Amino acid sequence: MIPYNLIRKKQRGESHSPEEIRELIRAFTEGSLPDYQMAAWLMAVHFRGMSLEERHELVRTMIDSGRRLDFSHLDGYVADKHSTGGVGDKVSLILGPLVAACGVYVPMLSGQGLGHTGGTLDKLDAIPGFRIHLDLEAFQRQVREVGICIMGQTDDICPADKKMYALRDVTATVDSIPLICGSIMSKKIAEGISGLVLDVKCGSGAFMTNVEDARVLAQALKETGAEFGVETVARITDMNQPLGHASGVWCEVREAMEALEGDGPADLVSLTKVLSADILRLAGMAEPEQAVEEALASGRAREKFDEMVAAQGGDVQALSDPELHQPAVTLPLKAPQNGFLTTVDTYACGMSLVTAGAGRQHQGDGIDPTAGFILEVKIGDRVEAGDEIGRTFGSDEGKVKAAAEELQGSLCWGEEQAPAPNLIID
Amino acid sequence: MIPYNLIRKKQRGESHSPEEIRELIRAFTEGSLPDYQMAAWLMAVHFRGMSLEERHELVRTMIDSGRRLDFSHLDGYVADKHSTGGVGDKVSLILGPLVAACGVYVPMLSGQGLGHTGGTLDKLDAIPGFRIHLDLEAFQRQVREVGICIMGQTDDICPADKKMYALRDVTATVDSIPLICGSIMSKKIAEGISGLVLDVKCGSGAFMTNVEDARVLAQALKETGAEFGVETVARITDMNQPLGHASGVWCEVREAMEALEGDGPADLVSLTKVLSADILRLAGMAEPEQAVEEALASGRAREKFDEMVAAQGGDVQALSDPELHQPAVTLPLKAPQNGFLTTVDTYACGMSLVTAGAGRQHQGDGIDPTAGFILEVKIGDRVEAGDEIGRTFGSDEGKVKAAAEELQGSLCWGEEQAPAPNLIID
Repeated sequence: MIPYNLIRKKQRGESHSPEEIRELIRAFTEGSLPDYQMAAWLMAVHFRGMSLEERHELVRTMIDSGRRLDFSHLDGYVADKHSTGGVGDKVSLILGPLVAACGVYVPMLSGQGLGHTGGTLDKLDAIPGFRIHLDLEAFQRQVREVGICIMGQTDDICPADKKMYALRDVTATVDSIPLICGSIMSKKIAEGISGLVLDVKCGSGAFMTNVEDARVLAQALKETGAEFGVETVARITDMNQPLGHASGVWCEVREAMEALEGDGPADLVSLTKVLSADILRLAGMAEPEQAVEEALASGRAREKFDEMVAAQGGDVQALSDPELHQPAVTLPLKAPQNGFLTTVDTYACGMSLVTAGAGRQHQGDGIDPTAGFILEVKIGDRVEAGDEIGRTFGSDEGKVKAAAEELQGSLCWGEEQAPAPNLIID
Repeated sequence: MIPYNLIRKKQRGESHSPEEIRELIRAFTEGSLPDYQMAAWLMAVHFRGMSLEERHELVRTMIDSGRRLDFSHLDGYVADKHSTGGVGDKVSLILGPLVAACGVYVPMLSGQGLGHTGGTLDKLDAIPGFRIHLDLEAFQRQVREVGICIMGQTDDICPADKKMYALRDVTATVDSIPLICGSIMSKKIAEGISGLVLDVKCGSGAFMTNVEDARVLAQALKETGAEFGVETVARITDMNQPLGHASGVWCEVREAMEALEGDGPADLVSLTKVLSADILRLAGMAEPEQAVEEALASGRAREKFDEMVAAQGGDVQALSDPELHQPAVTLPLKAPQNGFLTTVDTYACGMSLVTAGAGRQHQGDGIDPTAGFILEVKIGDRVEAGDEIGRTFGSDEGKVKAAAEELQGSLCWGEEQAPAPNLIID
C-alpha cells in the first residue's frame, strides 16, 4: 500500500478495495501512517464520501482493531440504543432501565459530551459513587446479572475509531456521513448486541440539520447493521428545540428519574416510549407498547434504574436528596414579549451549556454537575411578556449570567403561532 | 486564530480574510500549526479553491517568510522564465543564455526534477565542476557581472513555500491551481525580477492535462504577477509528446547546446524563440524576434552559456567532450509496425526516465546523468516497421531494458495520420 496513491484515489472520487481500506486504517492505528496523510484522506472522504463496500470494510477493520463482546450465552435478547446527539437528550437514562425491566439485556457503552451535545456518561458520573469505568469483564457480568450496564468506552473496544475520532475532531472531518456511520456502528457492533435502535437527531441542535442528510445517515446505519447481523431500527427525530425541559448534567438525571416515575415532559416521555417499544419489538415481544406502559406504571423501570446505580457503586439514597448538586446561582428566564415561541437555535442552547459549565469545549475539560437550564416553553407555546419560562443555573455567577444571555438569544419570538415540530419524523 | 475554524471555513467553501491566510501560513511555517491540520486545510483548498484575495495574500505571506532580492540598481531589464514542467523541456538552458546575450539580466532559481518531470538543476549538475548551490550574494554578483545565474533554491527564499510544498507532496495536494500559482509566483517574485514568461504546459505529460485548466492557471499566474508588479506573460504550450528529441540528463544538455549552435530540433527551437522574444518584448526591445535570431546566429547565446558555466565553476572544455557521460548501455527503439505515430502517453515517457535512472521517484533520490532516451519521431510522422526511431540508455542494463519497454509502451501507432499537435496553444 502506498498511502499517497490512496489519498489520490479518494480525492479523485474513486473507490478503495476492501484491502486498501483495511491497510490504511491498520497502518494509521499502528502509527506507521502519519497523521498528516490520514488528515488529508479524511478530508477527501468528507468531500467524496464512501461506497457501501468501503463503509463495511471501515467498520470491520475498526471492530477488528479491538475486542468484540459476545453475549450469545444469555437467555434473552441483547440490544442497545444510540442517539447521534442533541440538547436535553436523556432518553438513554430512561430507556435503558425500562427495556432491561422488560427482560432485554442492555450492554451500553456510552460517551462524554462534547461541544453542544451532552453525554450520558457525564450525567451518570454526577451520581455520587457511580463508577463509569469498569473493565469489560465486570461490564459483562453486570449485564448478565442486572440486565443493564452503562459505562464509558474502554481502550480495548475499537481503538482504531478512538484514534481516528481524535484526529477528525481537530481537522473538521467529524461531520462526514460515512465516518459518523463507521464510528457509531463499529462501537455498537463490538458490544455484541443483536438489536439496535438509533435515534438520528435532525434540526438546529443536531449534526444533521436537514432531513435529507438524516435520511442518508439513517440508511447507511441500517445497511451497516444488516451487514454485521445486527437488527437495526433508525428513527429520525426532531432536534429543533431541547428535548424535555432540563438540559445540563444533574438536572437531566432528575428529569429522567421523574420520567421513570411517570412525571416527565410529554415530548421526552413520548419519544422514550417509541424507542423503547422499537427495542421490545426487535426482541420479539407481542405487544411492545403495552409492555413499555406496564414497566413504567408498575415502577419496575424505576427500580431497575436504582439497581443499576447500586451495581455500579452509586449512592441510591443520594438520588432523592433535594440538596444534591444544588446550584449556587440561578437566574430566571423571562419571556421578553407577548407572543409565541417560533424557533429555537438549539445549537446555541447547547453552547450556552458549555458557557455555564455543563458542557465541554475540548475533550478532557471538566464539568460542573450543578449547571444547566430549564426551558419550560416549546415551539408554538404562547407567552406574555415577563412570564417566567425557565431558568439558568450553575456554580459560577459570571458563567451563569453569560449562559443565560446566550439562552435568551437562542429563542425567537413572533406574533403568529408557529406549528409545533413533528417529534418523530421517520 | 483558531485553526479548526479556518479548516471548517475553507471546507464549507467560504473565503478567508487576508489576516486569516497570513496567520495560518505563518503558524504552519513556525511550527505552531501541526502538519495534520495543514494537510486537512490543503485538501479542503484542493476541493474549494481560493479567491483572488486569498491567492494574493498567500503569495505575499510566502514571499515575506524569506528574503526578496532587489536588482533595481542594475542598468537593464531583469526577467526570468518558468515552465510548469514536462518531458524533454530544456528550454531554460537555451533561453537563459540567449536573452542574457541580448542584455536582459536573468536571476533564475530553479528546481530539481521529481516524478515524470525533469529539472533544469539536475541537467546543469551533470556539467563537471558546475556549482548549483551558491549563496544569494554570489548569485546576485554573477547576475550583475555575467548577466545570468541559474542555481537551486536557497533556504532563505520562501521557506514557507518549501515547507508547504513538502507537505503537499505527500498529501496529494500538489495539483491545486491556487497552490501551484502561489508556489511558482512567490519564488519568482522573490527573485526581484521585473518580467516573467511562464510556459504553462498542457497535455499528457503535464500537470494540466486539459486546456481549460491550463487557461485557469495561466490567468491566475498573470493576476498574481500584476498584483506584485511583475510583468507576466503566460503561454500555454503543448506537452502531448516530449519536447525536442532528447529526454534525460546529459543528453538534454547536449541538445540544448546544439540548439544554441543552430542545430536543434524544430519544436524545441521554435518554442525557445517564441518565449525568448516574449522576454525581449517585455524588456522593451523594438524587434525582439530579430534580436533572438541574431543572438543565435552570431554565436553570442552559445558564448553566454559557456560564460555562465565558467562563472559557476563548470569545466567548459568538458562540454564538448564526446566521451563525457557516455552511457554503458544503449538499446535501440524500433517502430513496431508500418503507420503513423498517433498519440504519446508523455507521462509514461517521463516515468520511463525515472525507471532508467534519469529521474526521481522521491525527493533526495540520486540521478544517473548518462540515462535518458532519444525519440526522433513526432505525432503525425510516418514509419515503417523496424525503423530505428530512437534509443534508450543509461548505466544499468536492467533499468535501461525496463525503461525501453515503458517507452515503447507509451507510443500509440495507427494507420491514419494524426494531426501534429499545435505547439503553442495560447
